[in-house]
Amino acid sequence: MAKVATITLNTAYDLVGRLKRIELGEVNTVETLGLFPAGKGINVAKVLNDLGVSVAVGGFLGEDNVGDFEHLFQSVGLEDKFQRVAGKTRINVKITETEADVTDLNFLGYCISPADWQKFVADSLDYCKAFDIVAVCGSLPRGVTPELFADWLRQLHQAGVKVVLDSSNAALTAGLSARPWLVKPNHRELEAWIGHSLNSLDEIIQAAKKLRMQGIANVIISMGADGSLWLSEQGVVRAQPPKCENVVSTVGAGDSMVAGLIYGIVNGLSQQETLAFASAVSAFAVSQSNVGVSDRALLEPILANVKITTIEG
Amino acid sequence: MAKVATITLNTAYDLVGRLKRIELGEVNTVETLGLFPAGKGINVAKVLNDLGVSVAVGGFLGEDNVGDFEHLFQSVGLEDKFQRVAGKTRINVKITETEADVTDLNFLGYCISPADWQKFVADSLDYCKAFDIVAVCGSLPRGVTPELFADWLRQLHQAGVKVVLDSSNAALTAGLSARPWLVKPNHRELEAWIGHSLNSLDEIIQAAKKLRMQGIANVIISMGADGSLWLSEQGVVRAQPPKCENVVSTVGAGDSMVAGLIYGIVNGLSQQETLAFASAVSAFAVSQSNVGVSDRALLEPILANVKITTIEG
Repeated sequence: MAKVATITLNTAYDLVGRLKRIELGEVNTVETLGLFPAGKGINVAKVLNDLGVSVAVGGFLGEDNVGDFEHLFQSVGLEDKFQRVAGKTRINVKITETEADVTDLNFLGYCISPADWQKFVADSLDYCKAFDIVAVCGSLPRGVTPELFADWLRQLHQAGVKVVLDSSNAALTAGLSARPWLVKPNHRELEAWIGHSLNSLDEIIQAAKKLRMQGIANVIISMGADGSLWLSEQGVVRAQPPKCENVVSTVGAGDSMVAGLIYGIVNGLSQQETLAFASAVSAFAVSQSNVGVSDRALLEPILANVKITTIEG
Repeated sequence: MAKVATITLNTAYDLVGRLKRIELGEVNTVETLGLFPAGKGINVAKVLNDLGVSVAVGGFLGEDNVGDFEHLFQSVGLEDKFQRVAGKTRINVKITETEADVTDLNFLGYCISPADWQKFVADSLDYCKAFDIVAVCGSLPRGVTPELFADWLRQLHQAGVKVVLDSSNAALTAGLSARPWLVKPNHRELEAWIGHSLNSLDEIIQAAKKLRMQGIANVIISMGADGSLWLSEQGVVRAQPPKCENVVSTVGAGDSMVAGLIYGIVNGLSQQETLAFASAVSAFAVSQSNVGVSDRALLEPILANVKITTIEG
């Protein structure tokens, strides 16, 4: 029986490619790097599974192009709790131009009907109670308003489910009002929530404290190369990973951090040990183009160099 | 038993969407118009099938994302002769910006190994003999050189197979040397083959005659709104479709024309009747965004207004 579930409401296929330069209005040939079943909750589940934690995955999948997802769940061994809905799972086309930024073309997918949502709320309230931790990850699909989302999170909270929320924009803002057990905004998302830029560690800590005061037990702020902070009733802990010499891709770094945090929590590690471990998993993710921990031994040298500081306690 | 086979060596999924403006280096939300199993031979087969001609489809499909193709073949009733190869079928992302051109991002797919090709040549030489017409459509995948392609067409010719070739660029040039039974370049492709621009009907006819002199029994030149020409030993026939008031998409117009030609040939229509019918099917295709003839009755008013002229003969 899985201990952890991750919920992805807005799953996606990532179609990833690269070329020298996109010529608008022309036919461009793109080197294909892959077509992957994706979505933040599925990424978190893959990393947790690599770390030896059994995971169930839920949310929505479009029934028209479900094949690659089912193949992934079977091959990896993820417990499939996804609700199939009419239509297709969206496709996010991600194109990297040589010496330029990534252009994302996010094709819209399924739209959740009121009946779909009603079924999902009833089913998930039932099955989520069985898990130690439920991670709710990513954005909202069409048909699910921030209000519906917050209402569902509130019901999970009332049912005693420990929710880890990793989202952004309107979904994050609405979700925070539902008092999840743990949230992990990054520096930019915290700025968007508070409404102004945060230019020092102290300003970030003060903003994160305001978030804590909403009634959220654990507030974790990721700050990229500057590491991360964990605010809880025990005080403020900071982790600083070693400098990453070889940044390949920051895609999935946040999902890897969430997986590392959940790993520490379900395995009874201390707050300091958990944040150090999560930092190492996240730093490792940056050194590769895909998401996952193929070999635990690769984490050890990074973990040994994570600096943990207790700022207040 | 199907009378016609179409061969698509470089099948594709078309991921079609539209948005106001592509912002390079940013996250763009795209309205999804569809994710379709595509490729010119499959389009031709769909139209022929709509017209009541039973069709077999062959070529290559990547085994990793074969699901939607198999679903299409089953639901439409196309006889599946496709050879599965390692990897994925490529995806062509087609994005229309409001009041701007279409940007194509063609993601590379499978690469045909020498062993794949050897098997395909042996199998197709065997099964193609059973069909009245074999249409060879579209571009070449990685691993299949124009020389290999021309050599295979030459073997089909020697085996007595009536090949209809609809391709462009290097594949067309190489294919023409193998003396297919019928070719259907458009005006631009004819210009590319002869190496200079063709600015009058007479210049186009003279260039098409040179193509005929390569030993090709039937040369059909499509000229968009200006209609089409058919050069054969019987002379030159021209078809002029009525002016299309409502151009939705020219995608698939060429494939529809090929399907209309094959329909006329296998049903024993005269050259004039066949070219008129093909012109009507092609003109109809321009008035819709997808490929196919949902209702034969829709062709009648167009067909009644196609003007047929015998230029020489």
